[in-house]
Amino acid sequence: MDLRRNHSVGIVQPQIARFQEPLALDCGRTLASYDIVYETYGQMNEARDNAILICHALSGDHHAAGYHAETDRKPGWWDSAIGPGKPIDTNRFFVVSLNNLGGCKGSTGPLSIDPATGKPYGPDFPIVTVQDWVHAQYRFMQRLGIDRWAAVIGGSLGGMQVLQWAITYPDALAHAIVIAAAPKLSAQNIAFNEVARQAIITDPDFHGGRYAEYGTIPRRGLMLARMLGHITYLSDDAMRAKFGRELRGGQIQYGFDVEFQVESYLRYQGSSFVDRFDANTYLLMTKALDYFDPAHGFGDDLSVALASVKASCLVVSFTSDWRFSPGRSREIVQALLAAGKRVSYAEIESNHGHDAFLVTIPYYHRVLAGYLAQIEGGSVA
Amino acid sequence: MDLRRNHSVGIVQPQIARFQEPLALDCGRTLASYDIVYETYGQMNEARDNAILICHALSGDHHAAGYHAETDRKPGWWDSAIGPGKPIDTNRFFVVSLNNLGGCKGSTGPLSIDPATGKPYGPDFPIVTVQDWVHAQYRFMQRLGIDRWAAVIGGSLGGMQVLQWAITYPDALAHAIVIAAAPKLSAQNIAFNEVARQAIITDPDFHGGRYAEYGTIPRRGLMLARMLGHITYLSDDAMRAKFGRELRGGQIQYGFDVEFQVESYLRYQGSSFVDRFDANTYLLMTKALDYFDPAHGFGDDLSVALASVKASCLVVSFTSDWRFSPGRSREIVQALLAAGKRVSYAEIESNHGHDAFLVTIPYYHRVLAGYLAQIEGGSVA
Repeated sequence: MDLRRNHSVGIVQPQIARFQEPLALDCGRTLASYDIVYETYGQMNEARDNAILICHALSGDHHAAGYHAETDRKPGWWDSAIGPGKPIDTNRFFVVSLNNLGGCKGSTGPLSIDPATGKPYGPDFPIVTVQDWVHAQYRFMQRLGIDRWAAVIGGSLGGMQVLQWAITYPDALAHAIVIAAAPKLSAQNIAFNEVARQAIITDPDFHGGRYAEYGTIPRRGLMLARMLGHITYLSDDAMRAKFGRELRGGQIQYGFDVEFQVESYLRYQGSSFVDRFDANTYLLMTKALDYFDPAHGFGDDLSVALASVKASCLVVSFTSDWRFSPGRSREIVQALLAAGKRVSYAEIESNHGHDAFLVTIPYYHRVLAGYLAQIEGGSVA
Repeated sequence: MDLRRNHSVGIVQPQIARFQEPLALDCGRTLASYDIVYETYGQMNEARDNAILICHALSGDHHAAGYHAETDRKPGWWDSAIGPGKPIDTNRFFVVSLNNLGGCKGSTGPLSIDPATGKPYGPDFPIVTVQDWVHAQYRFMQRLGIDRWAAVIGGSLGGMQVLQWAITYPDALAHAIVIAAAPKLSAQNIAFNEVARQAIITDPDFHGGRYAEYGTIPRRGLMLARMLGHITYLSDDAMRAKFGRELRGGQIQYGFDVEFQVESYLRYQGSSFVDRFDANTYLLMTKALDYFDPAHGFGDDLSVALASVKASCLVVSFTSDWRFSPGRSREIVQALLAAGKRVSYAEIESNHGHDAFLVTIPYYHRVLAGYLAQIEGGSVA
């Protein structure tokens, strides 16, 4: 095993949990049966009280840490934080990561066969919400024989799931760690999602979501959606630091080919995404973001929505995150305080924008590690 | 004339100036001949020293004030600021507004016939820069028999033209009013432009820019570009104030039709834009933005680039403008001060985002009117 894998959980194997009990969804439809693909890192202790659930963001999946094969170029998406001796320490915790329903990496989603028709769901896969995911994750927790998570942790859309967990299943988690999230999307957030959706939906290769039947992929639309997403994940400063106004060819071309480094970066990000992500899933994930609004059923008062919470909470934001700015995290903190809950808050200085939650920032990792170090139980011994 | 037209310049008639002298462009190509369409409001005085040039932004044109017909629903794009008794007072100034080269509203651009081929230029229209526009505007000024503008005024991309005027033709303007602009685009600004361009270029109806020959319009791409543009013109706050998270139908639909008010607004903006703007022109305008960098030939030192400036300058920014934030305007101010130039700066409190420069904000209009009131000459009498 080469050097970069020292501090890694090593080679991991995804597993599949099959559920035959129907799952009623917020949209009114029901999934008769479904699969959840997941990975685990570290070992469950005898008391079964050292399990941590990781919730993924828009384009994330179950592969959060380690490698699937010796030849993999990249580890899981949050390998920076999960592993032996890392902030989410697999020497101490049993870490569980899964792909959400509607995903495209193995859990039941638009690419899966609809048992009712024998054909892939495609655009007929039901709209899923953060609440639906949390219900599915709760069942999955029971399947693993876990009564209570030592912590549920997630960034961005993952952080929204953590918040929903704390509200919906207050007895099922000891700690909630909500990173770079928001209590609900702003109109601007929804607007960006809508442009991304329109890029996909208006792509002639989308065919109303039935592109698989037509042997096409809405490549252009998904690429545009991802390019746009990337702008919102990086801060203006991060882009300046990374690309400035550097010309790729050294001088102005007076044409429409790639000219500035930032264009080259975006086109690469967009184009490589198309090869590893499904357009119908992308649409579903953006809708789950738009719909998330836990205060909705509580007179639009988040502190009322949070009344049920029993978990201790850690809320983390990043100064240069303009997608979900520190102000949005402070709304969560203030609502938790107003509801009389235990909450710690860390605002991390960073110029990495929204993406900061995935970056190895020493102070951020010390906050995470320090918080997890003080939580009770959670030991392999 | 109905009430809303009180304080308007009334019915105006566009005019065309034809130029037979070749214009050498930054890209190395030459326009053998070209037309400039323009409008004027107010009267030139005998001293010919009361003329103000208005420079338009990305999707603007020569129709800045008044109405083309009694039946027009909307006046020109800056009617809020131009007219009798308004900040740019047509009782006192002779106001000139033109459509830039590469435009699609009457000046020579991609929709015009290329005399060399007898067919529309389409994508073969040369890339034009802010500097090229200013050269063309200077010739146009001479055609009007004006030696010096009392002021050159513009917002956004228009403000960049003003800055270029002050640098390139220092004796040809007494005052430069640069509103909601930046000394050059940031990587993030370029990134947004690149996504807009890719939306247009990858639209199958674009046909490499020869859509006219195919009888198509890259409707989807241009619509996406405009939707995206609109997000960057409004602040997050303005969107919240305007749309919040209001559902159009009153309740969640769990589908991909328009659901939130902000989606409805964006789709309308995108779709109506397609009927009044040309995709090739949109591409040219975004490139002019990307390339603008007056400090480039001066060791990347804006204050050195500004050494030639003789005009007195007013720089205006808006607090909630995140496309060209106040910080970008302060870069211009600081460079002008470092170069020992006369400059006034106003940072206007507003939650309208970048669009604020088009909005009737009392303090903003008082600043404009106050500045113009104190300038010498400029009287019809």
